[in-house]
Amino acid sequence: MTSLRSWLPLLPPQHPLRHHLDRLIPHPRCAVAIGTHALDLEAFAAHNGFSGLSTIQPHQSVFSSSSLNAFAALGRPIHSVVRKYIQSVFSVDTPYPDVLQNNSSLQKEALIPLKDVTTHLPMRIGDYTDFYAGLNHAYNVGVLFRGAANALQPNYKHLPVGYHGRASSVVVSGTPIRRPSGQILENPTAEPKKPVFSACRKLDIELELGCFVCKPNKMGEPIPIGEAESSLFGVVLMNDWSARDIQAWEYVPLGPFNAKNFGTTISAWVVLAEALEPYLARPAVENDVELLPYLREKREENVYDIRLQVELKTQSGNKTTISRTTGRNLLFSFPQMLAHHSITGCPMQVGDLLGSGTISGREPGERGSLLEQNENGKSTIKLEGGEERKFLEDGDEIAITGVCGEDEEALVGFGECVGAIEPALQFDF
Amino acid sequence: MTSLRSWLPLLPPQHPLRHHLDRLIPHPRCAVAIGTHALDLEAFAAHNGFSGLSTIQPHQSVFSSSSLNAFAALGRPIHSVVRKYIQSVFSVDTPYPDVLQNNSSLQKEALIPLKDVTTHLPMRIGDYTDFYAGLNHAYNVGVLFRGAANALQPNYKHLPVGYHGRASSVVVSGTPIRRPSGQILENPTAEPKKPVFSACRKLDIELELGCFVCKPNKMGEPIPIGEAESSLFGVVLMNDWSARDIQAWEYVPLGPFNAKNFGTTISAWVVLAEALEPYLARPAVENDVELLPYLREKREENVYDIRLQVELKTQSGNKTTISRTTGRNLLFSFPQMLAHHSITGCPMQVGDLLGSGTISGREPGERGSLLEQNENGKSTIKLEGGEERKFLEDGDEIAITGVCGEDEEALVGFGECVGAIEPALQFDF
Repeated sequence: MTSLRSWLPLLPPQHPLRHHLDRLIPHPRCAVAIGTHALDLEAFAAHNGFSGLSTIQPHQSVFSSSSLNAFAALGRPIHSVVRKYIQSVFSVDTPYPDVLQNNSSLQKEALIPLKDVTTHLPMRIGDYTDFYAGLNHAYNVGVLFRGAANALQPNYKHLPVGYHGRASSVVVSGTPIRRPSGQILENPTAEPKKPVFSACRKLDIELELGCFVCKPNKMGEPIPIGEAESSLFGVVLMNDWSARDIQAWEYVPLGPFNAKNFGTTISAWVVLAEALEPYLARPAVENDVELLPYLREKREENVYDIRLQVELKTQSGNKTTISRTTGRNLLFSFPQMLAHHSITGCPMQVGDLLGSGTISGREPGERGSLLEQNENGKSTIKLEGGEERKFLEDGDEIAITGVCGEDEEALVGFGECVGAIEPALQFDF
Repeated sequence: MTSLRSWLPLLPPQHPLRHHLDRLIPHPRCAVAIGTHALDLEAFAAHNGFSGLSTIQPHQSVFSSSSLNAFAALGRPIHSVVRKYIQSVFSVDTPYPDVLQNNSSLQKEALIPLKDVTTHLPMRIGDYTDFYAGLNHAYNVGVLFRGAANALQPNYKHLPVGYHGRASSVVVSGTPIRRPSGQILENPTAEPKKPVFSACRKLDIELELGCFVCKPNKMGEPIPIGEAESSLFGVVLMNDWSARDIQAWEYVPLGPFNAKNFGTTISAWVVLAEALEPYLARPAVENDVELLPYLREKREENVYDIRLQVELKTQSGNKTTISRTTGRNLLFSFPQMLAHHSITGCPMQVGDLLGSGTISGREPGERGSLLEQNENGKSTIKLEGGEERKFLEDGDEIAITGVCGEDEEALVGFGECVGAIEPALQFDF
């Protein structure tokens, strides 16, 4: 199989052999989710689906790629025309009725029921960076560990605090997450401090948005804030699984490491930045410091009004919505994160992933991590069916969903971001 | 050029057209440095250089790759036979005299004077992780910021502290490094704390070793300490350039970010782990805590006795050796770093880079960062020609070199790890 598959990229999408190989060998290809179906863009391109769009024709091979990177690299203007063209092909009064509406053979080739689709990581991720721009989350966690007076660090409102994450453990929605093991300090007050080896006992979630980069900058050349928006490809939902007990012991002085590198789940369908433009809004949190010029955006509506929801399903099947919040609870926008990330000249590449940081509202039902909900283990989260949780138990499944818009006819939905917890490995030292 | 080049990987190394294209189009390929020459392994393979080594013949296409990843992925046993075979081909009494010794045409094709070679990043790096295993460095820095009593954090001796770094800004020796700009807190005692935008004024080096991974593990499946050594490909010299003033303001609570992501220089020639085995030694620093079983190595000689040297050359041409130390000043070995990194199930990939952390000895002339040498700006480093430094000035060039062995006839040398500082960008906000 592998050797046959290796031939695929060598054949142009229109090559007759290509089509037969495609059917013989299932392989990841680019697609758009439309209603209950996925439009297979490789098949669509191979059967002249883009005949009405001359600008994309020289670039059609991008859709045969196993990730969206090549398409992303074409740039925002091309994303826009492709999006508008596909919308028009699917509209009732399409100017291109022969492309798909009257073409039952192409419908059969290229439209796949979503339930039959196997999703993959949408982008080949070079580097992944996680920010901390959810002000309410940073404040809530700060209160737990340092008290209200020192909850936010002095730098917090001046720059989007962030750290480099682990790209290799970013996985697509649906991938099981094994409970990690590592060093834990059972008794933080005993001296000398001596860790034990244990499965994580404080396994947590972090409700985030992820944003992909579509335009590289050269090393040494920062991306100006005014150009950052055009470097952003699109948005996914993200769950940055966190091992709080491993984190508490390891994170001084260089930040979280093993507490974060065992898995980060993203939704499979990237919502184009352009599709989200109508949902830009002012942040629901206020920044009362004067930002340095390299972070000043012209527009005041710079964060996404996405209604976000976290559902916990226990092994017994009980489902509880444990958080409802909005993307407006971010203090910094993705363009600001990108401008800050590259201000030193750090080279960004197509496919790099930026995480927003955990998104929490001000109220109890709006918190994006269990740590905040259970006040670091002091209280209990009540679930449907009489169950309770502090942190995640084996078999628990977390599903993050997101939607934009009020008009039922014109909602922009995100794909689900789902992961279930598998038991820790048994070690026999 | 690009389209011609794209055909290269499609042609087997033995294809006659391949050779002509190779000559027409310069492109990165695998090579071994031997004395004053590089052996071009692509040309060597194409002209039956491996005729005496049947095990490598099915894999020869790896040498036409633009990185060493494919060769690394073949595994330690293959690295070993290839190394021994090439050594034997170059020995005076080689059993394969017709391969190269009596083959002036292949000599002409495959042996390139090092002065004519353009080096490239040796590996395609997926993720880069920087550890902090240089005990003396961690102690010296800890003393500067927290005093001697609290110099080392409680976790320091129990686990190799590390953080995820930025893979996209790892560059090959010789690449210029532009002085980064960013947020700096000029007056740390004034309230409220308010940063300014500035070019970095405390630009520093970090003398490190880097080690590449050659065997992947599945997500969720840690690499046991006993198997970690076989997952390590080889070692390079590394300079983890650091902006100390940017770091001081940004690093709380998630660790260094912009202070590190503007450039990390590595030497171009990977020294195989096998070639370094004779130079394994006991650490020169002692760990007085009992390690958890997943970090316990059977052997006591687990770090490399590499003599390391840092030279600073100023724009006026004066050269000063500012540090001499050894790879033995690491508290944890690369196998321990790998076992710790993956204990949570973090998936490691071929080409991942592990940095050791800054290597310093105990004495003043043995420190691997300027921060330690100048006591965070309190003292001055004297250079040849009467010049002085606290941190790096524009035009300064840093060259790290490393060598193993005492016998002049049988030294193992590392390629140089060099970088010069370019002035900061001018911003017009």
